[in-house]
Amino acid sequence: MKTGKKLFLHIFILTLLFTNIYFAQFGNRPVVISPQVNNDFTVTFNFHAPSAKEVKLNAQFEKQPILMKKDSLGIWSLTVGPVKPDMYPYCFIVDGISVADPNNSAIFPNEGFQNSVVEINDKTPLIHSVRNVRHGTVSYRYYYSEELGIRPVVIYTPPDYEKNIDKKYPVLFLLHGTTDTEETWTKVGRANIILDNLINQQKAEPMIIVMPYGRAYPAISKSSGSLRNWENLQEFKKDFFNNLMLFVQENYRIKEGKDNYAIAGFSGGGGETLYLGLNNQDKFSWVCGFAPGMLKEEFDRNNAGAFADPNLTNQQLKLFWIGVGKEDFLYAVVLDYLKVLDEKKIKYEKYISEGGHTWMNCKVYLSIILQKLFK
Amino acid sequence: MKTGKKLFLHIFILTLLFTNIYFAQFGNRPVVISPQVNNDFTVTFNFHAPSAKEVKLNAQFEKQPILMKKDSLGIWSLTVGPVKPDMYPYCFIVDGISVADPNNSAIFPNEGFQNSVVEINDKTPLIHSVRNVRHGTVSYRYYYSEELGIRPVVIYTPPDYEKNIDKKYPVLFLLHGTTDTEETWTKVGRANIILDNLINQQKAEPMIIVMPYGRAYPAISKSSGSLRNWENLQEFKKDFFNNLMLFVQENYRIKEGKDNYAIAGFSGGGGETLYLGLNNQDKFSWVCGFAPGMLKEEFDRNNAGAFADPNLTNQQLKLFWIGVGKEDFLYAVVLDYLKVLDEKKIKYEKYISEGGHTWMNCKVYLSIILQKLFK
Repeated sequence: MKTGKKLFLHIFILTLLFTNIYFAQFGNRPVVISPQVNNDFTVTFNFHAPSAKEVKLNAQFEKQPILMKKDSLGIWSLTVGPVKPDMYPYCFIVDGISVADPNNSAIFPNEGFQNSVVEINDKTPLIHSVRNVRHGTVSYRYYYSEELGIRPVVIYTPPDYEKNIDKKYPVLFLLHGTTDTEETWTKVGRANIILDNLINQQKAEPMIIVMPYGRAYPAISKSSGSLRNWENLQEFKKDFFNNLMLFVQENYRIKEGKDNYAIAGFSGGGGETLYLGLNNQDKFSWVCGFAPGMLKEEFDRNNAGAFADPNLTNQQLKLFWIGVGKEDFLYAVVLDYLKVLDEKKIKYEKYISEGGHTWMNCKVYLSIILQKLFK
Repeated sequence: MKTGKKLFLHIFILTLLFTNIYFAQFGNRPVVISPQVNNDFTVTFNFHAPSAKEVKLNAQFEKQPILMKKDSLGIWSLTVGPVKPDMYPYCFIVDGISVADPNNSAIFPNEGFQNSVVEINDKTPLIHSVRNVRHGTVSYRYYYSEELGIRPVVIYTPPDYEKNIDKKYPVLFLLHGTTDTEETWTKVGRANIILDNLINQQKAEPMIIVMPYGRAYPAISKSSGSLRNWENLQEFKKDFFNNLMLFVQENYRIKEGKDNYAIAGFSGGGGETLYLGLNNQDKFSWVCGFAPGMLKEEFDRNNAGAFADPNLTNQQLKLFWIGVGKEDFLYAVVLDYLKVLDEKKIKYEKYISEGGHTWMNCKVYLSIILQKLFK
């Protein structure tokens, strides 16, 4: 049993330690560690907001925002879970305002909101877990468009691309969703890591992945809506074929012929993918939509190239793949779309998953199609 | 003069347009464009927070936070300036909480706070402005440390590096500040763009820039303070020479000999730079500190390699460069340091600028030293 003196000493030492840890770096502002993923797969979130009245955690592994609890230092905390191992976007809702986690440098690249990303690792690594295998290179490049100016693109080259200087590779063009950026497929979708791992396991062909900025901005303003907005599609198509594709062909060792060209995309970028892929079957043999953004009244217009000659489409495409989640707000319209494909006898593969319109599902869809492409 | 009917029609059309623009994308959440840089160099910031009581703009071109004004949609707005053309970090202070701009995907990569970045272009492009010149490649790579695990590093290779496969290049190791990440030198410091422009103007030698993650995390916890914390320095040094430098030498075409090796860094990374550079003069001939983080009581310990033999140091280093701003909180200690260098007759170049401990100054310092290195 502790004497009064010993108890006092303990508290004194704890206070010193605490003060030291929390006040070491920012003077009066406590150093907050967040998120903390615990060994039992629970996750602790911390957020310093002494003046806030209410802070909630809004995480994509929870059905709804959960109230956090404030301590005497003004740090709001919450431990949730155990959480199914994966990578999840989350934010804090501070008196009604959505805020990214200021202590987490893993940011969801986006033009319309700010989320942070938390990764919960499993005991055995997941397909998107960074492992000590041979890694490819993710390159940030610029190309030029006369209409749209200097355009960013992120390009993955597989392990040893730099050393195998006589080897050519197939290429996947991979498009992000509306309000995402050219960085979202690597930073939230982990496209590079997933392919590193699949190549390491000999489950996927080494390939190049080209991830452009999918919005024809600044010619088309951000306020003009989805990526599959018609004006965006026209401008983006011009840029894609006249500038981006040439840049890639001139600067990377790409195998020739359309059988070495694939296109895939998520959400608004899935809509772009179907539009670009199905109407340019002379350029791509592999077309994959991940919860592709679409409207029923646009089916005929956007799919004209495929609908005009279903037989030819079936011959020309080596893979036409559609994935969507049962809780996705696009589930109903995608099912309608698949019905139309059935009526027209256009062949496709479908993958109906659990879950909604999320990047967790995107990683699953990408992992599946990477094992099919160029085989 | 407008009739009542015409006025009504005008308002009706404006309202339609407004509603269309603002409510197109997010249903009930208005689409906010922010920041807007205007032709007269003023900048308009917008932030949607209907329930907030007070929103201020905290921008590094202003001396103090400035109150914003709320409209009937709950959008807080402020127009400031004209602002001197440059790139500036900023955030909104929402009822006391610092928040990045959710409508701006240009984020300041950092582990301890979240800022956005606004770029105000001049009529003639600045040294960090993205221009239609030949661009180098910014590559995101991983290397492995037995102690610290899988480590990220960002590497710039100059234009045509991929094509000049027999050419070797000198290398600059460039370190970020405390709480920054391996991305801060490109995303806020624009190191790649500055060098693209200087190479294009034939003012700098084509070189490789290696930007590692400068904290020995997770072995040294984030709460252990500055990058020049002693435990961090020891662990980072081991990683730097045993893993990072080997990775770079094995994977990039680096010219041999210490005259082709430079090291530079900002703030805590400036402290790391002086420690690594001055104590390893057999490995670097060029050592540059940008507002280097230092404490007077650490001068002797951290500079032992240079202080032991000033004559040899003067022979071995081709450039020992220190830059700092007159309003920098480190200005006094850096001046003390320069006095000690004078007493010991260690040669150096200094550059005393206006301004404080900012990335605006970092870009200036980098632009200067890039024109000196490897010449």
